[in-house]
Amino acid sequence: MEKAGAVLGWDQQTYMPPDAAGSRSAQMVTLATLAYDRFVNDEVGQLLERLSHDVEALPYDSFARSLIRVTRRKYQRERKLSRDLVGKLAEATTLGHHGWLQAREQNRFEVFCPYLERIVDLVVQKAEALGYPECRYDALLDEFEPEMRTSRVEALFSQLKEALVPLVQAIRPQVAQVDDSFLHRHFDEKKQWDFGLAVLQAMGFDFRRGRMDSTVHPFTTAFSPTDVRITTHVVPDNLASCLFSVVHEGGHALYEQGIPLEFERTPLGEAPSFGVHESQSRLWENLVGRSRPFWRHFLPVAQSFFPAELRGVDLEAMYRAVNRVEPSLIRTDADEVTYNLHIFVRFDLERQLVDGKLAVKDLPEAWNALMQDYLGVVPRNPREGVLQDVHWSDGSIGYFPSYTLGNLLAVQFFDQARKECPGLEDEMAAGRFGTLKKWLNERIHALGGKYTPAELVSRVTGTELQAEPYIRYIRSKYGEIYGL
Amino acid sequence: MEKAGAVLGWDQQTYMPPDAAGSRSAQMVTLATLAYDRFVNDEVGQLLERLSHDVEALPYDSFARSLIRVTRRKYQRERKLSRDLVGKLAEATTLGHHGWLQAREQNRFEVFCPYLERIVDLVVQKAEALGYPECRYDALLDEFEPEMRTSRVEALFSQLKEALVPLVQAIRPQVAQVDDSFLHRHFDEKKQWDFGLAVLQAMGFDFRRGRMDSTVHPFTTAFSPTDVRITTHVVPDNLASCLFSVVHEGGHALYEQGIPLEFERTPLGEAPSFGVHESQSRLWENLVGRSRPFWRHFLPVAQSFFPAELRGVDLEAMYRAVNRVEPSLIRTDADEVTYNLHIFVRFDLERQLVDGKLAVKDLPEAWNALMQDYLGVVPRNPREGVLQDVHWSDGSIGYFPSYTLGNLLAVQFFDQARKECPGLEDEMAAGRFGTLKKWLNERIHALGGKYTPAELVSRVTGTELQAEPYIRYIRSKYGEIYGL
Repeated sequence: MEKAGAVLGWDQQTYMPPDAAGSRSAQMVTLATLAYDRFVNDEVGQLLERLSHDVEALPYDSFARSLIRVTRRKYQRERKLSRDLVGKLAEATTLGHHGWLQAREQNRFEVFCPYLERIVDLVVQKAEALGYPECRYDALLDEFEPEMRTSRVEALFSQLKEALVPLVQAIRPQVAQVDDSFLHRHFDEKKQWDFGLAVLQAMGFDFRRGRMDSTVHPFTTAFSPTDVRITTHVVPDNLASCLFSVVHEGGHALYEQGIPLEFERTPLGEAPSFGVHESQSRLWENLVGRSRPFWRHFLPVAQSFFPAELRGVDLEAMYRAVNRVEPSLIRTDADEVTYNLHIFVRFDLERQLVDGKLAVKDLPEAWNALMQDYLGVVPRNPREGVLQDVHWSDGSIGYFPSYTLGNLLAVQFFDQARKECPGLEDEMAAGRFGTLKKWLNERIHALGGKYTPAELVSRVTGTELQAEPYIRYIRSKYGEIYGL
Repeated sequence: MEKAGAVLGWDQQTYMPPDAAGSRSAQMVTLATLAYDRFVNDEVGQLLERLSHDVEALPYDSFARSLIRVTRRKYQRERKLSRDLVGKLAEATTLGHHGWLQAREQNRFEVFCPYLERIVDLVVQKAEALGYPECRYDALLDEFEPEMRTSRVEALFSQLKEALVPLVQAIRPQVAQVDDSFLHRHFDEKKQWDFGLAVLQAMGFDFRRGRMDSTVHPFTTAFSPTDVRITTHVVPDNLASCLFSVVHEGGHALYEQGIPLEFERTPLGEAPSFGVHESQSRLWENLVGRSRPFWRHFLPVAQSFFPAELRGVDLEAMYRAVNRVEPSLIRTDADEVTYNLHIFVRFDLERQLVDGKLAVKDLPEAWNALMQDYLGVVPRNPREGVLQDVHWSDGSIGYFPSYTLGNLLAVQFFDQARKECPGLEDEMAAGRFGTLKKWLNERIHALGGKYTPAELVSRVTGTELQAEPYIRYIRSKYGEIYGL
C-alpha cells in the first residue's frame, strides 16, 4: 500500500494536471491512514512476538529471522504513535507543503511560518511519543538513521568542520583558477537528455525495470525492484546539471533495482537508512562522475553529442571544471567541498527548533547568520535562503544529516571497492562499470534492509562510519586541483 | 481507494516499464481486497440502514438521500459476494489478462482457453451469488446497466437487427460509392496529435483538470473531476483513427470533468451506467464528429494542418469518407452502421457461455459462424476474431450490450438537445460547442449517479430508452449517403 502511495506521489510530480492537487492529497491521506491501521494493531504485534521466538534458532541474517527483526523494529516504533497524531501529521504536512509552495512563489517566509509552527509542534509531540536515549533530536534522527545518536553526528560533524571550513577559506581566493565557463554554453535539451540516457545505460540501469522522466527537482522512486523511476531536469546553459542529476539518481536507482525480488513487499525491501541510500548516489555522482577515469571515457562521448560546444576542451580542463569549488547559496547546486556546510546549517537549526531554543519566526535571521558563519555568503531573499528546501514542509525534520553521512559512507565504500577490485579505475576509464556495479550489488544492494547501518558498514568495510577517509579524499583531490 | 487503483491502472498502460507487471498486479490485488474489506462489513451495513431512515423525509434527489440510496444499492449487491470469491476473481482476471496477451501474441486461442474457462466458472458463481429475476445473465448485466433485464436487451436488439442487417446488405454492393482513400495518405504523427488537441480544446476539455497521453488502445480514466485522463493512438496512414479516438474519449472526459466536486469520493461520483457513459462518447464521436456541421468548421482546420494531403477535398467528400460503411472484422474499427452487429455476436455468445450452452473451447467456431451470419465476413485467425477484445480476460462478461445501449441513448439525447437548443448545429458549424457542452453538463453530467439509467433517460427525454430514434437516424443518414 505504501508502494501504491508512491505511484500516486510520482504521478503527482510528473504528469498530474495542475488542478488535481486537492483530490490527490485526499487520496494520499486515505492510503497513509489505511497503511497505519493495517500495520499497527494488536494482532500484528502478537504475531510478531510469536514469530520472533520461532525464528530464534535460525541464522541472524536468514530471510525469516531478518524479516521478523526488522518488522518488529518498525512495529515497535510506529505503535508508539497514536493514529490521531499520524492523521494530524499527514494533514499538517499536506497543508504545509502547499503553504511552502505558496511562500516560495511569493518569496515571503511569513506565509510558511504558521504551517511550519504547526509542523514543529507535531514533530515535537512525535519525538516525545517515540522517546529517546539522550535528546529529543535522537528520536527524529532514528527515523532516517536507525540507532544513530545526535551526539555521534555532532562528533563527526565537528571533525568535518575543522577540516572543511579552513579548506573552503583557503580555496576562496583561488576560485578563479578553475574555469567552467564552457559548461555554461548553450546545450541542446534533447541532446543533453540523450547524453544522460547514454551515461545511465553505461552505469547498468535496467530500462526494462525502470524509466527516466523530467521534473523541476530530480528524484528517484521505486514501486518495486522491477519498477524504479528517476527524474532529471535539463538546463539549457548548464551541461553539468542534467548530467550529474542523472548520475546521482542513477546511483539511487541501481540500489533499488539491486534489491532482491524476494524482499519485495516486506520491510527488508528498504535500504537500512537514508544515509546508506545517499552513499550510493554520492558514490556515483562524485567518486565516479567527477573523477578522471569517468571523463577519460565520457569526454569524447560528450564531444560527439556537442562537437562545437566542447571543441578544444581537454581531460584536465573538464576534470577541473566539474570540480570547481565556490561557496554558494543553494544546497542542491553546491560543490563537493561546500555541500556539507549547508547541512551543518540545517542540523544546527533543526536541533534548536525541536529543543524550543529557536522560534520558527526567527528562522530566517538564524539561517542567514549561520550561512555567513559557515560559508561566508548571505541569501538576499527567503527563496534562496530558508525557503529553498522542501524537507521541513513535509515534516522531514532530522533528515538532513543523512546527506553528509551518505557522503562519508560513499568514500568508505568506494575505497573498499578499489581495494577489493584491482583495475577498477582502468575499467571505468574504458567506460565499463560492470565490476563496480556488481560489487555494489553483492556487497550492499543484495542485503536490502537486513542490517542496521552500523552493521552494514562494519560488514562491508571492517570499520565503523568515519570522517577521516572523507577528509583525506577531499584534501587530496582539492589540494591538487587548487595547488594548496 | 478505488481511485488510487485507477491511477495504478493508468500508469500501467502509459508509463510503466515492461518488467514491472508482476509487482503491479500484486499492488492492484491488495488495493481491491482492501476496498472490499472496508466497504463490505456489518458496520457499514448498519450505518446505511440507520441513515436510510434518517433521510426518508428529504427530497428524492437531494444529495443525502441520493447518496444513501445509491450506496445501499452498491452495498447490497457487493455483500452477496464472498471475500473469497472476490479474491479468486481478482486473481483469475489478473492471470487471465496476462494469458490473453500471450494468446494474442501467439495468435492461438488454446493459450487463452484455460484462463477463460476459469473466469467463466467464477463469473457463473458470481451470478448465482448475486441472484437474478429471470435469467443468469441478468445478474451480470446489472453490474454495467443497473436494473436492466436481458429480455429487454433482447427486444431492443431484435428491433435493431431487423433494421440494420438488411441495411448493411443493401449498402454492401454500394461500398465503392464512397471514397475514403485520401484519409489513408501519410499524415505526420506530431501534426495529427496537435490536430487532436485542437479538437479536444474546442470541445471544452479542461486541460488544467486533465491530460492526453498515447497508448495502443485509447481509453479514458478519471481519478477525480479534477484529474481526467484520455489516451489516443496515432496511425500514420489513417487520419480518422487518432481524431475519432480523441473525440470519443473526449466525450467520456467531458462527462467526468462535469461531475460535481461534492460528489467526489462517493458512489454518486459515477455515471448511472456504462451505457450512459458510452452515450456521451458516441454522441461526440458520431452525432457531432461525423456530422456536416462539425466538418464545415474542422475541414479548413484539418487542411491548415495538412495542406498537401487534403488538397482539393471538399465538405461532401470528407463527410462521406468519415461515414463510409463496410463490414469488417474488428469491432473498434467498425463504422456506425455495422458496429452494433459486432455487439450482437458477443451478446449471443456471452449468454450461451454463462448458461452452459457453449463450451469455452468451442468459442472460436461459434464466433466465426455468427460473424458470417451478421456481417458476412469471417476472421482468418483468432487475433482478428475471438481474441480481439480485452473484456472477457478482465472478467467483464455482460459489458458489451452497454455499447449498443450507448448508441441508442446518444441519438435520444442529441435529438433532445437539438429540440431544446435551437441553432445548435449552426453553432457547431462555426466551431462553437459551448451550448452543447452546457446542455450535457446541466442535464446529464451534473446529476452524477443520482438516478438509475431509466430514471435519467425519462428525466432528460421524457420517454424511455428506445431503438426507434436510432433506427430513424441511421436510415436517414445512410440512406442519403448511399442513395437507398
